[in-house]
Amino acid sequence: MSGKEIEVVQNIHDENDRIAQEVNKKLNDAGVFVINVMGAPGAGKTSSIISIIQNNPDKQFYVIEGDIESDIDAVKLQELGIDTIQINTNGACHLDAPVIQSSLQGLKIDKPGILFIENIGNLVCPAEFQIGEHIKMLICSAAEGSDKPYKYPLAFEKADLILLTKCDLKEFVDFDDDFFYKGIRALNKTTPIFEVNAKNGQGFGEVTAWLKENNLT
Amino acid sequence: MSGKEIEVVQNIHDENDRIAQEVNKKLNDAGVFVINVMGAPGAGKTSSIISIIQNNPDKQFYVIEGDIESDIDAVKLQELGIDTIQINTNGACHLDAPVIQSSLQGLKIDKPGILFIENIGNLVCPAEFQIGEHIKMLICSAAEGSDKPYKYPLAFEKADLILLTKCDLKEFVDFDDDFFYKGIRALNKTTPIFEVNAKNGQGFGEVTAWLKENNLT
Repeated sequence: MSGKEIEVVQNIHDENDRIAQEVNKKLNDAGVFVINVMGAPGAGKTSSIISIIQNNPDKQFYVIEGDIESDIDAVKLQELGIDTIQINTNGACHLDAPVIQSSLQGLKIDKPGILFIENIGNLVCPAEFQIGEHIKMLICSAAEGSDKPYKYPLAFEKADLILLTKCDLKEFVDFDDDFFYKGIRALNKTTPIFEVNAKNGQGFGEVTAWLKENNLT
Repeated sequence: MSGKEIEVVQNIHDENDRIAQEVNKKLNDAGVFVINVMGAPGAGKTSSIISIIQNNPDKQFYVIEGDIESDIDAVKLQELGIDTIQINTNGACHLDAPVIQSSLQGLKIDKPGILFIENIGNLVCPAEFQIGEHIKMLICSAAEGSDKPYKYPLAFEKADLILLTKCDLKEFVDFDDDFFYKGIRALNKTTPIFEVNAKNGQGFGEVTAWLKENNLT
């Protein structure tokens, strides 16, 4: 990149981070804890959000559903009675803080709770942008294979919570547990990792227990 | 984006397309047909490349392996005796034409054949950048679910050839064939779609037949 291009990119990041802090303060003051949900296409982000919500029926949840196009996931959540709004980025590969700031006008927040922001399905770009979150939750499917921490290190390095989804598929893809965990621990020594399966609810009790221990539900 | 930012982005795209044409001309003149292999993380891009190569033992193949970090896939290909070089983008979310132009110096092309360029695992950004290819081959795993054409339309719209991989996992993810095919055909009426499984070779005979019909192998 030329000097001018680098300067423009830096300006975009600085402005994004400033707005992310504003978004976080506003939601934090309203008693809302914000979870940025990241993962590759088809990793199981929406299914994981639904499973966590259904494990905590007494808690207030909100969802901002980010997609390039379509409202498939937002409709699914709304049909379950979950307060959800849809953002379509029309091509953009990640959510950013200005987009979240604008979208908050459409979300009626009347009591404390947890806001899941489901980012665009992309294991690369979303990890580079703050969007006002308290924590980043990374969703990685067993079907993607055990080498993902080595190939997409930033997302694993920055994750505060990791869910390995579709664990029932491990045996069909020769998933190597040792290789996967070793790859994550080289980047991120402490982040909790939970193995889950949204089809039968496996592992979501442990995720709920972790959220409770951290006073989030 | 501001006017200045839009101008910079447009300049980057124009310059990229100019270099992509140069790369394509150089390789075309050498009798090399270039396939840009795109798909999400863990879709099975490398396994599909290996299966196609092993189905065509008499043909010359070259591979440029694009990853953010690591050389796991390049080593796998080299161990099979396939002429492969590795590009690490160190964070960048897609390959671009200048990167390919530079990397060609490291690839010894001494006879006509097919060059696979495996793009970064990302179903969004690579679709926006020409890298000198003759065709784009999209790899989509059944484990990702059948709604991908609706959520990531650009990649499906631009694909010249689509492989639905890991078809043995369809039954475990309630894959909806009709929904998947309908979604693709709304974007792309004619692109051939092959259902494959790299573990047992299923479907790669049909891919090879298609390549032969098009005088590529």
